[in-house]
Amino acid sequence: MSGTWGSNIKFSIFGESHGKAIGITIDGLKPGIGLDLDYIRREMDRRAPGKSDLSTQRQEGDSFEILSGLFNGRTTGTPLCAIIRNSDQRSGDYEKTKALMRPSHADYTGHVKYRAFNDYRGGGHFSGRLTAPLVFAGAVCRQILEAKGILIGSHIRSIGSIEDRGFSLTGIDQETLRSLREKSFPVLDDGAVEAMQKEILDAKEDRDSVGGVIEAAAVNLPAGIGEPFFDSLESTLAHILFSVPGVKGLEFGAGFAIAGMRGSEANDECHVEDGKLRMYTNNNGGILGGITNGMPLVFRVAVKPTPSIGRPQRTVNIDKMENETIEIAGRHDPCIVTRAVPVIEAVTAMALLDNID
Amino acid sequence: MSGTWGSNIKFSIFGESHGKAIGITIDGLKPGIGLDLDYIRREMDRRAPGKSDLSTQRQEGDSFEILSGLFNGRTTGTPLCAIIRNSDQRSGDYEKTKALMRPSHADYTGHVKYRAFNDYRGGGHFSGRLTAPLVFAGAVCRQILEAKGILIGSHIRSIGSIEDRGFSLTGIDQETLRSLREKSFPVLDDGAVEAMQKEILDAKEDRDSVGGVIEAAAVNLPAGIGEPFFDSLESTLAHILFSVPGVKGLEFGAGFAIAGMRGSEANDECHVEDGKLRMYTNNNGGILGGITNGMPLVFRVAVKPTPSIGRPQRTVNIDKMENETIEIAGRHDPCIVTRAVPVIEAVTAMALLDNID
Amino acid sequence: MSGTWGSNIKFSIFGESHGKAIGITIDGLKPGIGLDLDYIRREMDRRAPGKSDLSTQRQEGDSFEILSGLFNGRTTGTPLCAIIRNSDQRSGDYEKTKALMRPSHADYTGHVKYRAFNDYRGGGHFSGRLTAPLVFAGAVCRQILEAKGILIGSHIRSIGSIEDRGFSLTGIDQETLRSLREKSFPVLDDGAVEAMQKEILDAKEDRDSVGGVIEAAAVNLPAGIGEPFFDSLESTLAHILFSVPGVKGLEFGAGFAIAGMRGSEANDECHVEDGKLRMYTNNNGGILGGITNGMPLVFRVAVKPTPSIGRPQRTVNIDKMENETIEIAGRHDPCIVTRAVPVIEAVTAMALLDNID
Amino acid sequence: MSGTWGSNIKFSIFGESHGKAIGITIDGLKPGIGLDLDYIRREMDRRAPGKSDLSTQRQEGDSFEILSGLFNGRTTGTPLCAIIRNSDQRSGDYEKTKALMRPSHADYTGHVKYRAFNDYRGGGHFSGRLTAPLVFAGAVCRQILEAKGILIGSHIRSIGSIEDRGFSLTGIDQETLRSLREKSFPVLDDGAVEAMQKEILDAKEDRDSVGGVIEAAAVNLPAGIGEPFFDSLESTLAHILFSVPGVKGLEFGAGFAIAGMRGSEANDECHVEDGKLRMYTNNNGGILGGITNGMPLVFRVAVKPTPSIGRPQRTVNIDKMENETIEIAGRHDPCIVTRAVPVIEAVTAMALLDNID
Repeated sequence: MSGTWGSNIKFSIFGESHGKAIGITIDGLKPGIGLDLDYIRREMDRRAPGKSDLSTQRQEGDSFEILSGLFNGRTTGTPLCAIIRNSDQRSGDYEKTKALMRPSHADYTGHVKYRAFNDYRGGGHFSGRLTAPLVFAGAVCRQILEAKGILIGSHIRSIGSIEDRGFSLTGIDQETLRSLREKSFPVLDDGAVEAMQKEILDAKEDRDSVGGVIEAAAVNLPAGIGEPFFDSLESTLAHILFSVPGVKGLEFGAGFAIAGMRGSEANDECHVEDGKLRMYTNNNGGILGGITNGMPLVFRVAVKPTPSIGRPQRTVNIDKMENETIEIAGRHDPCIVTRAVPVIEAVTAMALLDNID
Repeated sequence: MSGTWGSNIKFSIFGESHGKAIGITIDGLKPGIGLDLDYIRREMDRRAPGKSDLSTQRQEGDSFEILSGLFNGRTTGTPLCAIIRNSDQRSGDYEKTKALMRPSHADYTGHVKYRAFNDYRGGGHFSGRLTAPLVFAGAVCRQILEAKGILIGSHIRSIGSIEDRGFSLTGIDQETLRSLREKSFPVLDDGAVEAMQKEILDAKEDRDSVGGVIEAAAVNLPAGIGEPFFDSLESTLAHILFSVPGVKGLEFGAGFAIAGMRGSEANDECHVEDGKLRMYTNNNGGILGGITNGMPLVFRVAVKPTPSIGRPQRTVNIDKMENETIEIAGRHDPCIVTRAVPVIEAVTAMALLDNID
Repeated sequence: MSGTWGSNIKFSIFGESHGKAIGITIDGLKPGIGLDLDYIRREMDRRAPGKSDLSTQRQEGDSFEILSGLFNGRTTGTPLCAIIRNSDQRSGDYEKTKALMRPSHADYTGHVKYRAFNDYRGGGHFSGRLTAPLVFAGAVCRQILEAKGILIGSHIRSIGSIEDRGFSLTGIDQETLRSLREKSFPVLDDGAVEAMQKEILDAKEDRDSVGGVIEAAAVNLPAGIGEPFFDSLESTLAHILFSVPGVKGLEFGAGFAIAGMRGSEANDECHVEDGKLRMYTNNNGGILGGITNGMPLVFRVAVKPTPSIGRPQRTVNIDKMENETIEIAGRHDPCIVTRAVPVIEAVTAMALLDNID
Repeated sequence: MSGTWGSNIKFSIFGESHGKAIGITIDGLKPGIGLDLDYIRREMDRRAPGKSDLSTQRQEGDSFEILSGLFNGRTTGTPLCAIIRNSDQRSGDYEKTKALMRPSHADYTGHVKYRAFNDYRGGGHFSGRLTAPLVFAGAVCRQILEAKGILIGSHIRSIGSIEDRGFSLTGIDQETLRSLREKSFPVLDDGAVEAMQKEILDAKEDRDSVGGVIEAAAVNLPAGIGEPFFDSLESTLAHILFSVPGVKGLEFGAGFAIAGMRGSEANDECHVEDGKLRMYTNNNGGILGGITNGMPLVFRVAVKPTPSIGRPQRTVNIDKMENETIEIAGRHDPCIVTRAVPVIEAVTAMALLDNID
């Protein structure tokens, strides 16, 4: 099984890129929660393609229809299902090249797992398009979290070799996170924008693509959220973050750098502040023993370069089992990092609400 | 819930460091599998403390007793439960200091979550000692995987600032993995051993600790293992790897480095080899779209320095809500990386068998 | 959570009687299964209302739309979602009476559980209309089971005080089950039809309703299906059978009668037949220790009379907390047993495939 | 998987009748609950054999050892594991007859499912002895429920053809349930005891056995417990009740009798009483739409006669695939109904706490 996730709330995803519709069912929301549909639309717009020459010019119809679970503008407490119709389909494009396994895509692994019965058009169920329902679900969860004062935000930490400065691990606040959400190209150091965008456009010009790192945070999480061992909050977050297509690395707090530290440097020492225990540092990224410690949650994910590139690549025709060359035509994102930002935030919201509710 | 994990096989862990016993129940093993108990003992010895001055001198009784699920040396197919009695207990030590929240331990988060009712002695349920049942379960799973030809191995990639060379992502073979398991200090470049051990002993001398990175691999995994989206193999592995105490980062294949690459560099191009599709490179670490692609599975985890250090640290007395200083006495590992090696391999085996079986 | 069910296959139901659509997602079907959509339509027609004066004259639009998981007529192996639009809505009817808790409906329990935020129109998520997606899912599962030779069938064992003869527990065969499915009023003894229908029409005439018993069976189930203890096949079947609205009792094989037997009478003695172990009797209904024994699976469910009746009933106005009298207007089934027959068969198919696949 | 059950609380059972130990892990209990171990012992004594000539003379060592999850007499919130050592083993008895499939036992189904690798001694994992851990878990849950005012009780409704009077569905109170628990032979009409016991002793004298019906109830359940559809309270209770060995039927409220009623008779009409909605009748047994309605929960289970009888029975030697005759020697219960009473109550407590907590 792959399409259902969550402990207290069950999220069930379905759909293929070129099928009739994609969607998600959210089961376990409390009754009586007023949902702001404009809020959801704004989040989905952040993910939607076609907004600038930094991303694909495909116009995907990301308008959603809520089929159930909402009555008089409020959650009923029974499963909430939303679908997004697929519209901008050029399925014919895929027939000719369906035997050519696109490198670093799931074409080959899907072919093997589903014994060639998977819907290969546009990646089918593996398509990045499936992140649209995730953003929908995340937008539902975020609203509920925000009503509890919990805010999630993120920025582009790097594109290719260009870096934004990192979050101050102990100093992340609501203001910072809110301002990032307003930005179409969210970075902390606006001076980095131009170089980052150039990195993307250069790759595009070269019929190539480029990857990057997203750094995300959540503030106002109370201490005590999460579980020891198998359902540590790191485990839960990691589970859903690695389900986002293209994510190949994840680190919390100081992350890999903590491996090079001494304990005396890495340990987050404590003190009393306003009657509460607080840490001086936040190398553990807000989680100890799998459970929140009241400090900001901070993590970074590595996003790989878009696998679809126009340059010729060596691959295999799976029907003939022969070596061939592929040049992937079409309108592809030269960099998926910008569009991945709201997706990373969305799945973070899903994981946090699942743990809190 | 935190103590039960797995889809096809359910692993249920229980116990506290200073309680009567710790253990694990494995539900879902196929019937008729002959288990080599010596194999299990060897794996548990790899994790056991007290073997050199690199690790704690505590003598933990890691001998296990299988209570159920094994009959005439073979699995019955019904739940297999094993327990490990706790013996070397100095519980009294903990009474005096129980209100002092040890920095970067789960003392505070456990205190909040369990409203002060958790067993605080030696970390209780959060103790690294709970990794012993994981190694037991992993040793059961490894045997079954090895009978299918699937081999898991790992090496210490770094201790503090000292690095071993990395796996050749495409060139990992059974021989390499087997030889690593024979080593008491598993590295690829034996020339790194002395400097790494010095790093540990220096930290110990300074009443401090040091972290490191473990790089693990599995070979002979058939293509097609794993799921799209929520139960991607990266998700499953990440879930259980982040449940191992001290792990703060995880990356597959090229990992974070892939974020700095162009697609033309990062993409794993394909060709036909011996009638099978193979990749020229392995930047995706053996997983595409959440599913194995037939290349070696490779990943790295960052392990933080042992939080228990003898040096004075600033902390909080949670009963009085006052700032205090703590000097953690006792016999602690100056570095848990060496003992974490068999644990990382064990949970990898658990995740792989759960996906394959 | 209530809307997701299954171990190897996950079924996720959603929708309300008067919302936009109801539906179900089936996750875990094997890839490459050709689905006969006409077969599904026939099954849904068996459940559909408005076919005779024995059932409600409502014309529900039970035509389904498959949104995902089916490609070129075959399952892809990824989640299959189908929706059924709601059309024949007279939602206004419900506004006036929404505070009147209809006796033996879920109005009051839904009101309490969902703190008055549930969609009360036509019972909302509690509506019998939600059995339409179950019949859809069951029709998918039945096809797969039939391809394995496993056939499910059932008959109306009683309506009010009128009884059909029971299955011969050891003598159920495919022929019997197939012929039952062809009947619009499925009984073994066709002589009982007239009296049963009179029982229904008499109740209708009296603005009342009547209950009944359905007896179901499955043949050609191999021995060895099911689990000991918590997931005994009886447990799994019971779980989903009791989720069908109106079911208040369930018994396997000899059922409650076995409680009055001596062991020497109740025990199913064994012998060799055609090289296989067979039982002389089938008082255990095909299940021993939670696992199929190769004999026909047989069980009976008690279905309560339709709670909606036109006669005046004493109830409570939940807003005013005052006693009132209700006369339920509208087009209701005087007996839901006939329409429940395909639903009982459908959920049986879901449970069996979940155990087999 | 079969050994793990529950949504909010996970119960994991393990063990075989003649293995080293049987046990259960309870994961998800809230921290800080004081457990009365004497209470648990009393419940386990109610199930224990050897107390009179009505049950087997085997002396099973049902003393439990809590390995984890309890600290200073209170739950820690982490998994609570308890084991019961097996002691009175005459394993040798089983070697001679292991190929003879005992009629109506799980010998044959276990043999097929586990491909002859199951522990056949005394029924192995299928043994009724596995109900001891259930009673342990139930005794933990009951205490917690009783602290919330929720009381569970039951009586022997029938043994063979001898009946006790039934509960008054609307009039069950705490007093009645408490007094039943004090009785060694719990019936409402003490005049039925002698005839029932004679029924058992007659069967014993005839080297035969006899079945019966248990009627159980729970009072003070608040309205609103349970879920619509798949996790209806009837579904949850049915799931675990049918996992108790020997249960072949289950009915709620009026049960099968409701199928013979008119709606006007079956419907539970409502009125206001002390400011609360109450029903005049309780034919639905306290559950509507899968959710408690504030009336007493009432149900009945049919328990089959002990399959082990001394009389000669026709069976099959599974190794030779030949017909043989078996006479089951040893000390068996002529009737398991009396010992099943605390088991039925225990699993009811497990299901209720899982839904409430």
